[in-house]
Amino acid sequence: MTIAERWLLPDGIEEILPPEAARIEALRRLLLDEYRLWGYDLVIPPSAEYLESLLTGVGHDLDLLTYKLTDQATGRLMGLSADNTQQVARMDAHSLPKQGVARYCYSSNVLHAKTTHLLSSRSPIQIGAELYGYSGASSDIEVVALMLTSLNKAGLERITLDLGHIGIYQALVEASGLGEDEQAELFQLLRRRALPDLAQWLTTASLAEPFRQWFSSLPRCAGKFEELAKWKNAFQGVPQEVFVALDRLEQVAEAVQQRFPEVHLHLDLAELRDFNYHTGLVFSAFVPGFGQAVAKGGRYDSTGKVFGRARPATGFSSDLKILASQTTLRWQEAPGIRAPAEPDAELSATIAELRQQGERVVQSFADQEHLAELGCDRELIKHDGHWIVKTLSTQQAN
Amino acid sequence: MTIAERWLLPDGIEEILPPEAARIEALRRLLLDEYRLWGYDLVIPPSAEYLESLLTGVGHDLDLLTYKLTDQATGRLMGLSADNTQQVARMDAHSLPKQGVARYCYSSNVLHAKTTHLLSSRSPIQIGAELYGYSGASSDIEVVALMLTSLNKAGLERITLDLGHIGIYQALVEASGLGEDEQAELFQLLRRRALPDLAQWLTTASLAEPFRQWFSSLPRCAGKFEELAKWKNAFQGVPQEVFVALDRLEQVAEAVQQRFPEVHLHLDLAELRDFNYHTGLVFSAFVPGFGQAVAKGGRYDSTGKVFGRARPATGFSSDLKILASQTTLRWQEAPGIRAPAEPDAELSATIAELRQQGERVVQSFADQEHLAELGCDRELIKHDGHWIVKTLSTQQAN
Repeated sequence: MTIAERWLLPDGIEEILPPEAARIEALRRLLLDEYRLWGYDLVIPPSAEYLESLLTGVGHDLDLLTYKLTDQATGRLMGLSADNTQQVARMDAHSLPKQGVARYCYSSNVLHAKTTHLLSSRSPIQIGAELYGYSGASSDIEVVALMLTSLNKAGLERITLDLGHIGIYQALVEASGLGEDEQAELFQLLRRRALPDLAQWLTTASLAEPFRQWFSSLPRCAGKFEELAKWKNAFQGVPQEVFVALDRLEQVAEAVQQRFPEVHLHLDLAELRDFNYHTGLVFSAFVPGFGQAVAKGGRYDSTGKVFGRARPATGFSSDLKILASQTTLRWQEAPGIRAPAEPDAELSATIAELRQQGERVVQSFADQEHLAELGCDRELIKHDGHWIVKTLSTQQAN
Repeated sequence: MTIAERWLLPDGIEEILPPEAARIEALRRLLLDEYRLWGYDLVIPPSAEYLESLLTGVGHDLDLLTYKLTDQATGRLMGLSADNTQQVARMDAHSLPKQGVARYCYSSNVLHAKTTHLLSSRSPIQIGAELYGYSGASSDIEVVALMLTSLNKAGLERITLDLGHIGIYQALVEASGLGEDEQAELFQLLRRRALPDLAQWLTTASLAEPFRQWFSSLPRCAGKFEELAKWKNAFQGVPQEVFVALDRLEQVAEAVQQRFPEVHLHLDLAELRDFNYHTGLVFSAFVPGFGQAVAKGGRYDSTGKVFGRARPATGFSSDLKILASQTTLRWQEAPGIRAPAEPDAELSATIAELRQQGERVVQSFADQEHLAELGCDRELIKHDGHWIVKTLSTQQAN
């Protein structure tokens, strides 16, 4: 291995350099502060857990994303955290004492064994918020509102919100009498939106006629809020649960349209999710020119059941790296003050005081070169026996 | 596996709950802000790298701490980050453009395959600062001063600073003529401070008489700064490099004593480090009643050589979890304001305004129970057609 190869990073695993890292830190603080103002308490999920607690009850996709490690102390298999939501659900079910509504937020690095999209990161910095213990529409509305508000504060503009409800598909499948394998095939066809393949598959599937029609219609029911009434007509005779889901979707869509009139609302009755833990309203936010969601979430009631406490749950998350790439906010490090490194008590006191005032004071050492790299526009100099701040000329700064 | 077992976390891998997580976040911001004021730019090291870049040039101990994973895209072995310092050194050597002195800081989760001490965490949240490109004593003094200042700001009190210099041991070993295996044995004996075993080993080792004497004296040369002159007498005739190291140690100790008179200074000529990358001044900070260092660091010149750029380097790091356990600062979440969740534009605007002012406003949903868990001492109510903030009686708060 040559020196040139030694520093190559694995595909999709990034290091973050200045000034990008400072931007990500600023966004992190801004979002966590907003979550806090809405009553969401910070938790820090562990970076690895035993596989049973990490993957019980979740889908095959999340399993494939999860790196497996052997715990040397016990010989048991652990998984690296690939998605914080499951972990927070476990914490709510077991570790946390609240009996009523509980709100939690988090921000931590996750690692994926493979990419989820072409060119996507395998090491997102996940940040998100979760609400437990309430199943009514007002909790769906709160998390969507928090997601949109925090994207707004984070400087993301021209947001499109996709809204769907997993309950529509789930109620239809449950009533359809499809076997497990057929269900999996149908899920994949709808998830990929492979319409010709779906049409072909539906002609041979063991389905009663109205279900064939309903599954065929589902991926076409996508568009503006105003079209929802029209779509409802296509579903006459469906199980009652489908209409319960449609009503919830309508209620949340209406509230979002009212509170965020600038957001482009897009409804999609065939919206499905990879990790297989969602059960109700699901939502994703997009910005122009970026192919993946900048934030997404949804309801995942009863995830905590495998840990002994089934609770209604809804939440959302983002990748700070993606948010930093799409923000319109601009951060600029203010120029600092250069100070000599001398064992002088008055100098030390002056430097400490300037830093106390928020000034960045960077020491320059004896014989140091490349001083311009320090990013200073002023310097501390001794004048009449006292240390004073003086502006650097462009020439001096170098 | 029963439900009760499913939530057990692996030994040494912790989740962090409220309010502890908020304390850790507050400390994180406080330290990163202090580093920034001293001119240290934030970087975010990757959570995994190929083994060649992660472990080239470091000791066996770090290798043993590092979890290995197969990169599914290339089949090559990756390691999970177990120590950020090596990663930042690689970034300075390869990814970062500065030619002169460069300062970087970071805070990120690392994962250890085994514990380093009895009861120590396997998932520290490492936070630290590194200075590249200068070998003079003033850079050693700067990083020690930054470490002590930030421990101070973080509310750690009654700090003891251990100071040593790896160059003393290294120069003696180099001149001693010891073979590689014998060097490793001697290193372990000194590292463990196994004085009787060391005495026994020295009687049989192939060493010239003065070396036997010097290695025997080394672990006894530990104590107050004032004793340094006395220890020097024990080393008459040693290679010149030992005195160069002793002079550096003296210079830094003097500066620290002057700037931080409240810090208990403890010198130790036999101070060695596990990860084997240190080359010069090394230092650790301790507080009463806690058996491990709360922060430690040292000089590690030339680490970047394997990546094509050998640079002088020094820095330090801490574990935020340890700092949070030892801080005397107290954070208390201020009580919030309870607000109903209703589709009322004036209510939404009032809530947004209160949050803008820094108030935590928590929605309560219809029929919600356990309201005391929301931690509010006021509520928003409609009075004469307007939303106003009213204090909750103790009874109402529940």
